[in-house]
Amino acid sequence: MTSYQKRRGKIYDWMAMEGVNLVMIEDFENRRNPAIRWLTGQPGDALLFLSVDKTSLLVPWDINMAMLYADTDAMLPYGDFERQPIKALKGALERLGIPAGTKVEIPGTTSYPRFLNFVNDVSDYDIICREGGVWSEIERCRAIKDESEIKIYQKVSALTDEIIYLLEDQIKSKKLKTESDVAFFIDSEGRKRGCEGTGFDIIAAGPSRSFGIHAFPSFTSENFGGNGFSILDFGLKYAGYTSDVTLTFVSGQLSKVQEKMLSLVDKAYKLALSMMKSGEYARNIAIAVDTYFNRHKRTMPHALGHGIGLEAHEAPSLRSRSDNDWVLEPGMIIAFEPGLYDPVHGGCRLENDVLITKNGAEVLTNSHIVYL
Amino acid sequence: MTSYQKRRGKIYDWMAMEGVNLVMIEDFENRRNPAIRWLTGQPGDALLFLSVDKTSLLVPWDINMAMLYADTDAMLPYGDFERQPIKALKGALERLGIPAGTKVEIPGTTSYPRFLNFVNDVSDYDIICREGGVWSEIERCRAIKDESEIKIYQKVSALTDEIIYLLEDQIKSKKLKTESDVAFFIDSEGRKRGCEGTGFDIIAAGPSRSFGIHAFPSFTSENFGGNGFSILDFGLKYAGYTSDVTLTFVSGQLSKVQEKMLSLVDKAYKLALSMMKSGEYARNIAIAVDTYFNRHKRTMPHALGHGIGLEAHEAPSLRSRSDNDWVLEPGMIIAFEPGLYDPVHGGCRLENDVLITKNGAEVLTNSHIVYL
Repeated sequence: MTSYQKRRGKIYDWMAMEGVNLVMIEDFENRRNPAIRWLTGQPGDALLFLSVDKTSLLVPWDINMAMLYADTDAMLPYGDFERQPIKALKGALERLGIPAGTKVEIPGTTSYPRFLNFVNDVSDYDIICREGGVWSEIERCRAIKDESEIKIYQKVSALTDEIIYLLEDQIKSKKLKTESDVAFFIDSEGRKRGCEGTGFDIIAAGPSRSFGIHAFPSFTSENFGGNGFSILDFGLKYAGYTSDVTLTFVSGQLSKVQEKMLSLVDKAYKLALSMMKSGEYARNIAIAVDTYFNRHKRTMPHALGHGIGLEAHEAPSLRSRSDNDWVLEPGMIIAFEPGLYDPVHGGCRLENDVLITKNGAEVLTNSHIVYL
Repeated sequence: MTSYQKRRGKIYDWMAMEGVNLVMIEDFENRRNPAIRWLTGQPGDALLFLSVDKTSLLVPWDINMAMLYADTDAMLPYGDFERQPIKALKGALERLGIPAGTKVEIPGTTSYPRFLNFVNDVSDYDIICREGGVWSEIERCRAIKDESEIKIYQKVSALTDEIIYLLEDQIKSKKLKTESDVAFFIDSEGRKRGCEGTGFDIIAAGPSRSFGIHAFPSFTSENFGGNGFSILDFGLKYAGYTSDVTLTFVSGQLSKVQEKMLSLVDKAYKLALSMMKSGEYARNIAIAVDTYFNRHKRTMPHALGHGIGLEAHEAPSLRSRSDNDWVLEPGMIIAFEPGLYDPVHGGCRLENDVLITKNGAEVLTNSHIVYL
């Protein structure tokens, strides 16, 4: 049994228990959902239908591509349905023999106007669109990585570390001088090592731009590593899974404010790491860091961290918001990234990835503050 | 009056006419909407509220960044609302003095479950979520580029052509050998010339991968430009606006099938171009090309083209679907891209950008079939 079959098996079990006869998942431009890749290996641009009878039907945009990648019971080209989701759903209901009147769950992200179209056009079925349901189940399953995913993370973390060490050397020796130099070096070295690319736009922000949480543009031809703080936030994407690390490069004489910022970020990082263990509320860790910064009259303008996987940001969330009820469990892989930003003094952030284990957390990557 | 103020003015006029008192626009991860950039210059990660009293309130994630970019009447940090859209909406309603009981339009892409939350939590107002309404109005306005946008397109098209010529030379002389070489060359040369980056993931697919409509991964360390067809699809992003061109590089002795494919794509390209003029139905052009291919027993597995602008795919659509009622108008900027794909013989596609004028179309870019 493939990993994909095992994963689909979990969803079929859930469907049987909940009385949902068909689930439709959509992964197209502006409506991305990597659950299709998680369940079949198909990298994107497709609809996936799962029937409670344990049959999967993939409807890809590019059938030739899907033949190479998809682990599925059946496949029909999207063109057969005029590339229209509702037509494809009707086709799937017929092909999979789903009895009229039963529950069909469509993506919880479906817009209200589109939901009304589904309800009107597929009126023989009970169309369900909700945030919980199968979407929570998939999110929960994806948050806890299986053996094959943990292996991928060991690989992508090792590659990330390899590139961190190369970068440190090349930036110190001034072989890489600009933000662009650094970004292209990472992307190119990653692909040479078999990566699909990067997991998100690399942020390489020299001293004049590091004040931004996410610099805009994400990198330019400007200097990287000059006097002050330079932020480098990147992730390699290997077999679909992304790492996510941030280094701050420090150069020249620091102001007192900058020294204080560095020290606070370093301590917040250690505080967060000390709390990473199975059974801990993710929210509590985020609150501890927020409180620590606030006690020193600083505010972190973003969440503390997030799960990583087929998406750069996935469950569990490390936010302090009251609606965050995630509890850490063994198998979760989390990126955490305390950071402080100042329009005058620049920004610093430190981010690594950890695997939650029974007794604590295994730090997977080795990014750190680099003194040039 | 800035271009941004003029654009907001159009939306205010529409709001007054339609009796909508407040419009909320959202541009966050997984819910991107470049309308905020179009209306204020703010590149992203923000909420924008427009009141019928002609006031704009921006709620950015990163206030320091927004200070540099945003043209708006007022600004409040998203952190003031615990980074929660509904809380921000409530704050905006109060701050902008919107009378209870009036119409408030939220994004037409809002999911059904989130829509219910808005309706429950902001029960003093008439919350509207639809696909038409202000979203159609913004889409319609954005589809017809104004003077400042056409100037940007003249610039980004010239830069794109400059890089096309360099590429041709460097690929012919084998200075660029792999898909990665080609992709990094484009991105790097673009940024040197002031581009923000690329408008989408560059697709560089050598002969073994060109059969895919959108190769996966989009580029690798494999050979580019070897015997057969290599596809290169890229866009430079300048001041927010993206170009979008595709070249096919042809090398070695072609099979009869490949020769036929090239010739069909070339003729389809000319056919489409001959129909590009103000007053023409976009759908008719797409149907003409589909019919042409079908007559030669081939099927194009994707739409013929699309508008370009702050997004790589925006209005008008050049699809043959029956619900496509776009009519070409002067000021529209359109990328069109006939292509054919074969799992054995590879794929070829040709794509350029045109500006629709009163009498026809001005071809902005010069991509073509390159014989190596």
